[in-house]
This record gives sequence, C-alpha cells and structure tokens, in this order.
Amino acid sequence: MKFYDCSTAPSPRRVRIFIAEKGLDIETVEVDLRSGEQFGDAFTRLNPDCTVPVLELDDGTCLTEVMGICRYLEAAHPEPPLFGRTPTEQGLVMGWNAKIEQQGLLAMAEAFRNSLAGFKGRALPGPVAHEQIPELAARGRERVAAFMTKLDARFADSEFVAGPDYSVADISALVFVDFATRARLGPGDDAKALARWYDAVSSRPSAAL
Amino acid sequence: MKFYDCSTAPSPRRVRIFIAEKGLDIETVEVDLRSGEQFGDAFTRLNPDCTVPVLELDDGTCLTEVMGICRYLEAAHPEPPLFGRTPTEQGLVMGWNAKIEQQGLLAMAEAFRNSLAGFKGRALPGPVAHEQIPELAARGRERVAAFMTKLDARFADSEFVAGPDYSVADISALVFVDFATRARLGPGDDAKALARWYDAVSSRPSAAL
Repeated sequence: MKFYDCSTAPSPRRVRIFIAEKGLDIETVEVDLRSGEQFGDAFTRLNPDCTVPVLELDDGTCLTEVMGICRYLEAAHPEPPLFGRTPTEQGLVMGWNAKIEQQGLLAMAEAFRNSLAGFKGRALPGPVAHEQIPELAARGRERVAAFMTKLDARFADSEFVAGPDYSVADISALVFVDFATRARLGPGDDAKALARWYDAVSSRPSAAL
Repeated sequence: MKFYDCSTAPSPRRVRIFIAEKGLDIETVEVDLRSGEQFGDAFTRLNPDCTVPVLELDDGTCLTEVMGICRYLEAAHPEPPLFGRTPTEQGLVMGWNAKIEQQGLLAMAEAFRNSLAGFKGRALPGPVAHEQIPELAARGRERVAAFMTKLDARFADSEFVAGPDYSVADISALVFVDFATRARLGPGDDAKALARWYDAVSSRPSAAL
C-alpha cells in the first residue's frame, strides 16, 4: 500500500492526520505539486484527476478523494472509531464534515486559488485550465469569516465538532483553521470557544504532521 | 422521525431515493422553498443553515446534509448496503460520491444559481445573500459537460459508478444527470455507456421519486 502525499497541501494533510490517529504506518510518496508532477504520465495513471491524496492498495486499486481514503481506512481499521459509533453519531460526523468541506475548505480554496499569482490559469485543481475569478476570491474570504463564527458557536455547545468525541470532522476543521490562519484569514481573538477546541486538537501528536 | 423534503430540489431527492432503496417509510414534511419557508423561525430552529434535507430523529437530533442523513440510515438499516460492503468498496463509493458532488452537482448548482433571474442575490443556499457571478455560471456549464464525458468513460469500464453494485454514488449521479438534463446540459447522444447506465438506474422504482 502506498500513500501519495504532498506535505504543503491541505487535502493530503487531512489523510496524514487520519493515518496517525489510527496508529498506522503506510509507505508515503511525496508528489511535487509545484513542479507539476501530478500532471505527468506516471501520476495520471494513478489518478486521472491529477490530485493528491491517492491511496494505492496492494491489488492496484487507487482510492482518491480524502473521504474515499479515510472511509477505506476506517472500515479496514475500525479502532479508534473516527466516523462515530452509533448511527446518530455517524450521521452527525458526516453532516458536520460536509459543512466543513462546503462552507470552510471550499471557501478557503476559492479565496486562495482565485487571488494568488501562482494559481493564474489554475483556479481549480485538476488537468483543465480555469482562469481566476476575483469575485470568487472575495466571496470566499467572506464565507471563511462567516464559517469561523459558526464554528465558534458550535464549540460553545460541543466539546468536539460532532459531539463529545474526536472524529474525522475535527481533522477537517483543524486543517481548515490552519489553512485559513496561514492566509491571514484565521479566527479573531474573540472566538474563545474555537480557541479552546483548537488548543485541544492541535496539541495531539497527529496535528504536527 | 420526520424527513424535511422539497419535491423540486435536487439535494433532498437524493435522500428520497435512498429511503426508497432501503425500503423505509418515513413521515415526510414538504418545505416550500419558493415562499422562503426555510428562512422562517420554525425551520431555522431545525437547521440554522436553512437548507433541506433535514432528518429530525425521535430524540430531537436534527441531521443535515445529504451524506449525514444517508450515513445515519445506512448504519441504522444496513440492508441492502448502499455504501459498499468491503473496505475497498466503501472507499470507492465515498471517493466517487465526492467526485460527483464536487465536479458534477456543485458545478451544476453554480451554473444554475449564478444565471437564473429567480436566484438573484441568492447565488448560494443559506441565509446569507450572495450576488450572482456570471463567470461562475459559465465555468459551471463547462464543468458539467466535462463531467458528463468523465462519467461516460467510467461506465464504459464499470456497470455502476463505484463497481458492480448499485450504491449511493449512483443516486448522486442520477440526480446530477437529471438536474443537468432539465437545464439543457444533459449528456449528448454519443455518450452511449452513460445512456446504458442511465436506462438501468432510472428504471428502478426509486427513480420516479
């Protein structure tokens, strides 16, 4: 089994943290996104969408998308559970994870890829060229700020994202907050509940990855 | 248990089909999105994001987001499995479902909500007003066409989206294709493999919902 990673990108970081929380040791291959290695023939054969992360199984099956890989690992290595135990917990984890992806991570990617010079002509991941849309960058920044407020309100009511237990939704939220902070779109000093949660999750050894 | 639905919207249709494939009978409440019922106090208490679908459980927990609800139903009613059986199947189902959401359904929503007069000032679902971005509508249409081609190529290799068995990823793909077709962005006559799959999934009784 091989994990195709990129140490500077947010999506594969979600899987790195998930692997560490499961206590697994998986051979890792660094893909150089800056030099365009993801568009080369070798990588395109693994994932025609030209995105990391990819998990190549021993039978040659290539799993793509963060949640595709994490779900495989959860089913193959159920302990500790990171997708919830009961049906209700599982529903809350998946629902919150979807909110974080749509309202947090996607908004952040829109803000980032539609404004930085390095992403000109590459406003979406993948092999197709898409021009930047400045209005989308502005909208993304607004949405990131609004979602920080929503997360702060959630942590006033709940220890972790989906309830009393740490889950894959906390991993997604941590990567979102760190990605936003690096782009100077992080939470304000008044987000006290978010800060309490952030201290707890970012002090886990997996967060250093 | 109550399912908050809207018979004309694509997201809750995914859950309606899922419920039917599980053979479940759940009390359904129609939410009138055209009159703005989702922004009223009663609905906002169920889901502050003001979106359908919502599944209200008997203990008062409200599950939101299509995948949050479907995952709950899968865990509570495992047969027939719609998220795959083996770890590899589960990973492929989730990975393909994510691709359909990001490259298909989201692109379609961008095309739709950023061009129709009825969505002026409401280019994103939820309580916050967002202006339409015409470039995003154009990009959405291009991406829908590209994803139709990708699906057609997939069905040349695979009976269903994620392999030999029908899954939640087929439900997502069916709703995407029907949504696109209604907006005159459906597959072309040359998409023969896609047409073969479409005939199979749209003839299931659940597809009439």
